[in-house]
Amino acid sequence: MVSCHEQFMRLAVSKAELGIGRGQTPFGACIVRNEKVIACQHNLVWQDIDITAHAEIAAIREACRKLNSIDLSGCTIYSTTEPCPMCFTAIHWAKISRIVYGTSIEDAKRFGFSELLISNSDMKRSGNSDIEIIPGCLESECLRLFEISKSKPY
Amino acid sequence: MVSCHEQFMRLAVSKAELGIGRGQTPFGACIVRNEKVIACQHNLVWQDIDITAHAEIAAIREACRKLNSIDLSGCTIYSTTEPCPMCFTAIHWAKISRIVYGTSIEDAKRFGFSELLISNSDMKRSGNSDIEIIPGCLESECLRLFEISKSKPY
Repeated sequence: MVSCHEQFMRLAVSKAELGIGRGQTPFGACIVRNEKVIACQHNLVWQDIDITAHAEIAAIREACRKLNSIDLSGCTIYSTTEPCPMCFTAIHWAKISRIVYGTSIEDAKRFGFSELLISNSDMKRSGNSDIEIIPGCLESECLRLFEISKSKPY
Repeated sequence: MVSCHEQFMRLAVSKAELGIGRGQTPFGACIVRNEKVIACQHNLVWQDIDITAHAEIAAIREACRKLNSIDLSGCTIYSTTEPCPMCFTAIHWAKISRIVYGTSIEDAKRFGFSELLISNSDMKRSGNSDIEIIPGCLESECLRLFEISKSKPY
C-alpha cells in the first residue's frame, strides 16, 4: 500500500526529475492541504538566475499566489531533500504545519552542495518551533535524484 | 564623520520608511559592492502577497537580476534588522561577504514579529560560515522604524 505521504512525495520527485532535464539542481517540493496539491516546483535557481529560488521557496510563492494569502496553516510541504535553513525558516513564516522530506542536508553536502549543516531538528529546537518533521520518505528515490544529476554540467 | 557603513545603512532606513508608508512591515536592506549600491528594497510581503519577500530576499533577487549572476561575492548587505535565519541562509547561498545590521532579532520579537530566535552569530557558528557580521549600525534610527510603524493597521 502506498501511503499518502509517498504519493505526494512522488510528485515532488517527478518535478525534480523534470528540473534535472532542464539543467536545474536535483530538488523538488510539493505543498498539499487537505489532500489537495496547492503547488509543486523544482529548483529554479539557474533558470531564473535567482539564488533564493529553491524548490521550497518557489512552491511557497506559488501557494501564496494561488491562495492569495501568506498564511499556509494546515499545509504539508514534501521536499525531496531536507529543507535548508533558508527554506525551513520560510516554512516557519508561512505557518506550514508539517515537513516531510526524503534525503538529508548531509546527503546534499556529500554530493557537493555548499550547505549550512544545520538540520531541521536543530532549527526546530533552537527556534522553539512546533512544526512536525517526518524524515526519510521515499529516501532511495530521492537519493537517486543526486545520482542522475551528477553528469550534468553545473 | 559619517562612516561608509552608516551612509549605506541610511539608504536601507529610508527604504524601510518608504515601505512603512506603503503599509509594509518596517524593514529595509541595501546591497553594496565596491562602494556602489547594487540593490535596495523594503519588505514586500504584504504588497506582493509573498511570505518570502523580506527586504533582504527582495534585495538579493534584485542584485541577481541586475548582475545577471547568482554569485554576490564581495558584496555587503545592510539590513535595518538582523536578518532572520531565512535571510541569513540566503545571504550564505549568495556568497555575500558581510552583514551590517541595526537592531537585533530580539528587538523584532519584542515588537511582535514571530521570529525564530536564532541569532546570526549562532547561525554562523552552527553552520561554520565565514561571513563577517557587524551589529548595531545606526541602531537608534533602526529602532525608530519599529516605533513609527506601530500605529499602522497590519
